[in-house]
Amino acid sequence: MSVYSSPSSNGAQAPYVIGIAGLGTVGCGVIAILQSMERELADKIGRTILVKMVSAQNRAKERPVDIGRYQWVDDALEMADDPEIDCIVEMIGGSDGPAKALVEKALANGKAVVTANKALMAFHGAELAKAAEGQSLFLGFEAAVAGGIPAIKILRESLGGNRVTGISGILNGTCNYILTTMRESGRSFDDVLAEAQALGYAEADPSFDIDGIDAAHKLAILCAIAFGVKIDFSTLPVTGIRHIQAGDIAYATQLGYRIKLLGLARSDAHGKVSIRVEPCFVKADSQIGAVESVFNAVIYDAEPVDRIMVVGRGAGAGPTASAVLSDILDAAQGAVLPVYARPCDQLVTLDKEFATRQQDEESRFYLRLRVLDVPGVVADVATVLKNYQISISVVSQEGRAPKQPVDVVFVLHEASEKSVADACRDLSELQSVLERPTVLRIEDL
Amino acid sequence: MSVYSSPSSNGAQAPYVIGIAGLGTVGCGVIAILQSMERELADKIGRTILVKMVSAQNRAKERPVDIGRYQWVDDALEMADDPEIDCIVEMIGGSDGPAKALVEKALANGKAVVTANKALMAFHGAELAKAAEGQSLFLGFEAAVAGGIPAIKILRESLGGNRVTGISGILNGTCNYILTTMRESGRSFDDVLAEAQALGYAEADPSFDIDGIDAAHKLAILCAIAFGVKIDFSTLPVTGIRHIQAGDIAYATQLGYRIKLLGLARSDAHGKVSIRVEPCFVKADSQIGAVESVFNAVIYDAEPVDRIMVVGRGAGAGPTASAVLSDILDAAQGAVLPVYARPCDQLVTLDKEFATRQQDEESRFYLRLRVLDVPGVVADVATVLKNYQISISVVSQEGRAPKQPVDVVFVLHEASEKSVADACRDLSELQSVLERPTVLRIEDL
Repeated sequence: MSVYSSPSSNGAQAPYVIGIAGLGTVGCGVIAILQSMERELADKIGRTILVKMVSAQNRAKERPVDIGRYQWVDDALEMADDPEIDCIVEMIGGSDGPAKALVEKALANGKAVVTANKALMAFHGAELAKAAEGQSLFLGFEAAVAGGIPAIKILRESLGGNRVTGISGILNGTCNYILTTMRESGRSFDDVLAEAQALGYAEADPSFDIDGIDAAHKLAILCAIAFGVKIDFSTLPVTGIRHIQAGDIAYATQLGYRIKLLGLARSDAHGKVSIRVEPCFVKADSQIGAVESVFNAVIYDAEPVDRIMVVGRGAGAGPTASAVLSDILDAAQGAVLPVYARPCDQLVTLDKEFATRQQDEESRFYLRLRVLDVPGVVADVATVLKNYQISISVVSQEGRAPKQPVDVVFVLHEASEKSVADACRDLSELQSVLERPTVLRIEDL
Repeated sequence: MSVYSSPSSNGAQAPYVIGIAGLGTVGCGVIAILQSMERELADKIGRTILVKMVSAQNRAKERPVDIGRYQWVDDALEMADDPEIDCIVEMIGGSDGPAKALVEKALANGKAVVTANKALMAFHGAELAKAAEGQSLFLGFEAAVAGGIPAIKILRESLGGNRVTGISGILNGTCNYILTTMRESGRSFDDVLAEAQALGYAEADPSFDIDGIDAAHKLAILCAIAFGVKIDFSTLPVTGIRHIQAGDIAYATQLGYRIKLLGLARSDAHGKVSIRVEPCFVKADSQIGAVESVFNAVIYDAEPVDRIMVVGRGAGAGPTASAVLSDILDAAQGAVLPVYARPCDQLVTLDKEFATRQQDEESRFYLRLRVLDVPGVVADVATVLKNYQISISVVSQEGRAPKQPVDVVFVLHEASEKSVADACRDLSELQSVLERPTVLRIEDL
C-alpha cells in the first residue's frame, strides 16, 4: 500500500492525491497555499491534500516555492496515467494542445480535473463535460471566469433554485483598468494601453483582451450554466474598446455615466437568449459604475433572488489560486455536480440567427459624431434619425469651431440596435460627418 | 417499501425527502420553487426533492401555494421522528422554543437540517454544530445571513483556501433603507422610521434592527466561520442608528461620504480578533458606498484572493427562499462540511476583554458637536482633543447663529477609539457643548 492511500493523521479518509501541471505564478500560488495551510485544509475537509507530481516546461526555472519534494515529470500526460492520483490540476493554458490532451486523458482515466483554462472550457467545455458526466467525475473551472470571484459556484450552487434571467459583467480587468485610467487622467486609449503594457496589466499583443475576446469566452462559460446554451463564437457579437476616445469618456462623465466593457446575456420569458459583449454606458452612481480599475464584477438577475452582484479581482496569481483551491477542496470532498447544471444532452447550440434576431431589441444609445461645424448639421442628423423613427433625448455640442471638426453628442431614446446601425450607415454618408459614428449602448443596470 | 424511497424517474438516486416547518412567506416561497422547478432541480442534482410533511401554526390560513398534497402535522416535532424524512427545513424562527427543539431533535435523529434562523444560530450554533458533527450531518443556514447573498457558501467554500483577515458588511436592510432615505429626502430619523414601518421595511418594534442587534447576530455567525470564534453577545460592542441626525447625513454627503451601519471584524497577523457593529462613514464613491436602500453587502478580505464584495437583497421572501433552496440542494447531494469550517472543538470563545482591547485600535473619526455659537468654542474643543493627542483634519461650522445652538463638525486624524471616547467625555462637560457628542468611525473600505 502506498503512502498516498494510507489513512490521514486524523484517522479519517485517505489523502486526496493531486498532480499539478503548469507552474507559473498561479501554479506556484496554489502550491504555496497547500504547503502553508496543510493542516487547516485537512481540518476543513476531513482529509489531507497531497501533491504527488508536478510538471512544467522548465524544471530548472527558479520558483518561489519548493517543488523538490514532489515527483517531477517532463510529460504532464504521465500524471494522468498514475493510478494514485485522484485529481489533475491543469494550469498549462491554451484551448488545444497539451492542456486539452491532459484534461481528456485525465477524465478518460477516471480522474477529477481542476482547470483555470477559460479558452479550453469556452471551446471544448461541452465535450469535456460529457466525458466527466459519463463517469460522474468532478470537472472544476472556477478560476476560468473572473479570477477570484466565485462566479461559477454562485451560479451553479447558490442560484441552484433560481431561474436566471440575466448575467451582466465586467469580465476583463485589462479593459476596465484602461477605461478607468482614461477617465481619471483624460489620456488617450493608445497612451493608457502602452502604460498598461508597461505595468504588466496588458499583454504585448493586447487584442485578446481589448477586442473583447477574453470577456466573450468567460461570458460563454457562464451562459452555458445559466441558460444551457452552447455558443459558436463566430456568431457572437463582440465589440472591444479600441474605438473609445478620450472624448467619449469625458462626455460619459458629463452625462453621469461610466463606460464599461460589459458581457451581457439575457433570457426572456420564452427562453429566447440574447448575448453580446460591448462597451456600454452605465450610471456613474450605480453599483457596477463603482467597479473600477482591474476589478471585475458579475451581476446575476434571477427569480426569486432578484439580483446579486459580486466584485473582485479578475486576474492575478492570488485570486486565481484562490479559485483553483476552492475547486480542489470541492473535488476532494467528492462534490460532483453536472458541469453545466444539467445533463449534457440538454445543452442546446444557439442557432446562427440569434445575433441577427437580438438586433431588434431596444435600448437607449449614446451617439457621437465627428462633424464639420457648419450650420444645419444637427438638422441633417436629426432628419436621418427621424427616418428610422429614432427619437433624440439630448443633443450637445461643446464649444464652437466654425468650419472645423467638432464632436456632436446625442443621447437617443429607446431604439433597436438595427435601426441605430442603419441610421449610422446613412449618417456616414453625410458630407459633414467626418468619421465613422461612435455608438455605445446605455445599460440601466 | 415506501413511495418516498423508490428510485427517481431518471433511475438515479432515491428522492430526497424533506419536512418543512413554518409556512410564512419564505416557507411558501420555498414550496413554490420546489413545485415549479421539480424537474429542473432533479436534473441538477440527480434526484428528486420530495416534500413529505409540512407544519405551521395555523393550518387553515390562506396561502399562495397548494399544501394539500403534503401530510400536515400540528406538532413539527413529529417530522423529526419520521423515518422517511431526510432533512428538516426549519423556518419557525426564534432563538429558543419550538425552533430549537425541532432542530435538536432532527439532528439527534440523524437528519440534515436547513434553517433560516439567525437568532438560533447566533445563540446556539456551536452546540448544534457539535450535534451535527458527531454524525456528519448537514446543517445549513445560508438564509440566516444576508438573505439572498451567498455569504456562508462564499466564506466556507469559495474562500476555503484563504486566510480571512476581515469581514465588513451592510448586514441590515432596514437600517440601510432608513439611512439612504434620510440622505435622499433630508428627513429625520423618526420620520423615515415611521415610513419604513408603514411600508413593512421595519417592524412595529424596530429595536432589533435599528439598534444593530440583528446585524450583530449575522456578523457573529460569519466570524465563527471566518475566525473560529464564539461570541458572547454581552461583550460585543454594538451601536445602532437611532442617534444619527439629518445633519450628520448632510455633513457626510458634503465631505464625500455615506453613513452605513457596518458589521466590522478583523483578525490581525497574531490571530487577534476585533469585532464591532456601528454606523460608519464610508466613501460615497466606494463600492460599498454605492450599496443603497434595502440592499445588503458583505466584503471579505482574505489572502490570497485579496477582496471580494457581494451585494444583494438581505431580506424578503424571494431572496431568503433562494438561500434555503441552495442549502436543500447541497444537503440532497450529500455535501457535509464542518459547520464552522473546522472541527467544533477548535472553536474558541472570545475572551471578555477583547472589546476593551480593541478600543486601542486607531482609525479616523467624524465628530459633531452641538454647541452654543460663542467665540472660543472651537479653541476649547481643540484644547480637549489636544489633551488626548488627537489631531484635527477638518473643522467646519455651517453658518453663524450668535449665542444660538449650532453644529460644529470635526474630521479627526487617526486616533484610538478609547482616546476619542475619553475626549468626548471631557467635551460633554464643556459649558458650550449642549448635547452628547456624535462620533462616527471613518472606514476606508
